[in-house]
Amino acid sequence: MIMEKGISSVEVLPSKSSQVTAVKVVVKEPTTKQTQRGKRVGFVLVHAGAGYHSESKAKEYKHVCKRACQKAIEKLQAGALATDAVTAALIELEDSPFTNAGLGSNLNLLGEIECDASIMDGKSLNFGAVGALSGIKNPVSVANRLLCEGQKGKLSAGRIPPCFLVGEGAYRWAVDHGIPACPPGIMATRFSLAAFKRNKRKLELAEKVETDLIQLKKRRQSNEKGSRVMCSAYGRPPKANDGVGKRGDQIELYSRENDSGTLDTVGAVVVDQEGNVAAAVSSGGLALKHPGRVGQAALYGCGCWAENTGAHTPYSTAVSTSGCGEHLVRTILARECSCALQTEDAHQALLETMQNKFIGSPFLANEDGVLGGVIVLRSCRCSAEPESSQEKPTLLVEFLWSHTTESMCVGYMSAQDGKAKTHISRLPPGAVAGQSVAIEGGVCRLESPDS
Amino acid sequence: MIMEKGISSVEVLPSKSSQVTAVKVVVKEPTTKQTQRGKRVGFVLVHAGAGYHSESKAKEYKHVCKRACQKAIEKLQAGALATDAVTAALIELEDSPFTNAGLGSNLNLLGEIECDASIMDGKSLNFGAVGALSGIKNPVSVANRLLCEGQKGKLSAGRIPPCFLVGEGAYRWAVDHGIPACPPGIMATRFSLAAFKRNKRKLELAEKVETDLIQLKKRRQSNEKGSRVMCSAYGRPPKANDGVGKRGDQIELYSRENDSGTLDTVGAVVVDQEGNVAAAVSSGGLALKHPGRVGQAALYGCGCWAENTGAHTPYSTAVSTSGCGEHLVRTILARECSCALQTEDAHQALLETMQNKFIGSPFLANEDGVLGGVIVLRSCRCSAEPESSQEKPTLLVEFLWSHTTESMCVGYMSAQDGKAKTHISRLPPGAVAGQSVAIEGGVCRLESPDS
Repeated sequence: MIMEKGISSVEVLPSKSSQVTAVKVVVKEPTTKQTQRGKRVGFVLVHAGAGYHSESKAKEYKHVCKRACQKAIEKLQAGALATDAVTAALIELEDSPFTNAGLGSNLNLLGEIECDASIMDGKSLNFGAVGALSGIKNPVSVANRLLCEGQKGKLSAGRIPPCFLVGEGAYRWAVDHGIPACPPGIMATRFSLAAFKRNKRKLELAEKVETDLIQLKKRRQSNEKGSRVMCSAYGRPPKANDGVGKRGDQIELYSRENDSGTLDTVGAVVVDQEGNVAAAVSSGGLALKHPGRVGQAALYGCGCWAENTGAHTPYSTAVSTSGCGEHLVRTILARECSCALQTEDAHQALLETMQNKFIGSPFLANEDGVLGGVIVLRSCRCSAEPESSQEKPTLLVEFLWSHTTESMCVGYMSAQDGKAKTHISRLPPGAVAGQSVAIEGGVCRLESPDS
Repeated sequence: MIMEKGISSVEVLPSKSSQVTAVKVVVKEPTTKQTQRGKRVGFVLVHAGAGYHSESKAKEYKHVCKRACQKAIEKLQAGALATDAVTAALIELEDSPFTNAGLGSNLNLLGEIECDASIMDGKSLNFGAVGALSGIKNPVSVANRLLCEGQKGKLSAGRIPPCFLVGEGAYRWAVDHGIPACPPGIMATRFSLAAFKRNKRKLELAEKVETDLIQLKKRRQSNEKGSRVMCSAYGRPPKANDGVGKRGDQIELYSRENDSGTLDTVGAVVVDQEGNVAAAVSSGGLALKHPGRVGQAALYGCGCWAENTGAHTPYSTAVSTSGCGEHLVRTILARECSCALQTEDAHQALLETMQNKFIGSPFLANEDGVLGGVIVLRSCRCSAEPESSQEKPTLLVEFLWSHTTESMCVGYMSAQDGKAKTHISRLPPGAVAGQSVAIEGGVCRLESPDS
């Protein structure tokens, strides 16, 4: 097995709606001579969120990605299903206090943790998801269990098994199915509680500014001469249509300085020995979200997608997304990427999807910036030695990540690797988050087991 | 304005996975001479569920569809937005005790009512949805309010407004936004409570059969000679792989005899004076569903879709779905229909979508039958008198319904009609529900206002 990755050039591509900067990766196929013989057990690619990863915590982000990869590979080596391997990776990512998923998730407006997670199996095309789930340490385990139960067929009296459960009902179902409840107070960390307090203060300040501006506007309206009034809160005169008296937008919750609000969603994609793919995603959602808000991580087609080779799909594909939930939902981005990846050039297909179906999407035309990231994996069977009479089919795995956020932390590993490789991908200097795309990736060839 | 509908023939079309019977409709375009002059204010198409509509209640189903159409047209005539008109139609459908939405919804396993609803605006492409919502009489009002609030832009401190809320959080949001809470006990009707009790008894019986079969299986396994044992519960010897000891499927909750379990979801599609489209859907979900289960009516791309004419969309389209939530979710049917309708022949496009992307979907390959229905509307501007120098642009509205369920109740009306037309569409004799498609529809031409 060999793995190669090389960033060759930075090219600026024009776009209708916005400037798009692409870090183009040349995906080099290894020559047969270079391949090392070994057992083909699978490959995993994980992400610890598309958002902003500070240099000071880079080591932690990379470390959790590495551990997540190892967990998935251990499962594959033990003969587990792709869905179980992807779940193992997600559990590791959820358990890290540095990610916004499971333990240490963003707190909502009421200071509670409500998680979204989903999983898809490329073989059966089954799906399991939970939304706004509290009181369970690993939301992805519940999603995986829903998927497994769904595969058993109908319930008694011909009832259709649920594939998506939310809130209290999801919690009860999980506990009834033997998934342990997590005592309150364990899920929030010192870090997430501090971020909550900081965010709450910001919000109060923003709302105070808003109230002040409403009063200011009233005074301005009552000034019949219409003379311009300086707005001290902004430190500049309010514009005619800048929403004065309505919003306190200048105090931004999701700013670069506020790590906890910018990271969203973790995920993984896996291909197993047989070429079956699986994908999963998990998120604590936006900081100070409204209770009951469900984001892309719980939604079919939006958070993750996995689809084995089929009659109309020459490639097996697996996708997991991250970023601003509302943007990922309205573009159904995971499924969109999967569909696009059925064309020959995976890199070009993904870049065009991020440009045209995400940043340039008519569904997000009114957004200032479109924030998200994806990891994708696609595989197909091919012959390692096409000229040889003894054909030895190998699995060609192409893997890519792409984001419009400032950064995205990823890790990847094949069953033959001693350890995972990790990387924090960043937009190139000068590129604008929300308007630019970074894209990188690689390829690996997994040979059939000798036995 | 003129409206025409004619069922010309029944043709049996072969399909890979199943027999597909199509009731083909010839959509005749009215000649210019036939058109009546009048104000172009819009058109509405509603449905009261795809499922099984008994003859005994046909009058009631038709009556509620008629009233829903009238409510939407009244709104359009008063100059309301397409989203407000579609909401008005939905409120009427939800308020009927005969539909499985809002008042009189199916009760879940715990005897509670939890509703899903969503709405989409073709102009802004915004979306609002609620899932597993209790305690609010009209779930669609909350979905519409989420859509409206979302259109106002960011919340204080740059927070992104939610587009999808579930459970308790959705309820709190609704009440905080002035939508009145509904006292407990009002939503359930005599009819829905009786159905709940009947379903509960069936379930208990099914589970008793299951327990009996487990014991029977154990006894059979302990019989070393392997002689065949008659299964009294089935009245036939159990087959080798019929799940004996596992399921009590033979007692079916969702049978033709059990009206309340077979109907699912109501919806509407609207086009207004300006050619803006909107779609909405609302559902009480499956009878005896697990608490917290969310179905297609709440899910983006699955329950409804609306998209105005755009750079890549020559037609404005609006779609609302009904049927088995899990089937509609896994095929993202509403969006799939909308995409397909961008080709010239709307009837053929919808038929092929129902055949290939629904019944024949690889995502539902393991299902015995695929149950659902859609109403679709598409419109485009065209000239009524192409040869005339005084071009008078009209709005050509094509409307169709299609279902794989035994029946589907629809109503439609244009602003010029004195009253709505209603129809219960049924699969032709011999067609198998879940494997066959019925498709019907019509066309109407809305002229520009004279003024």
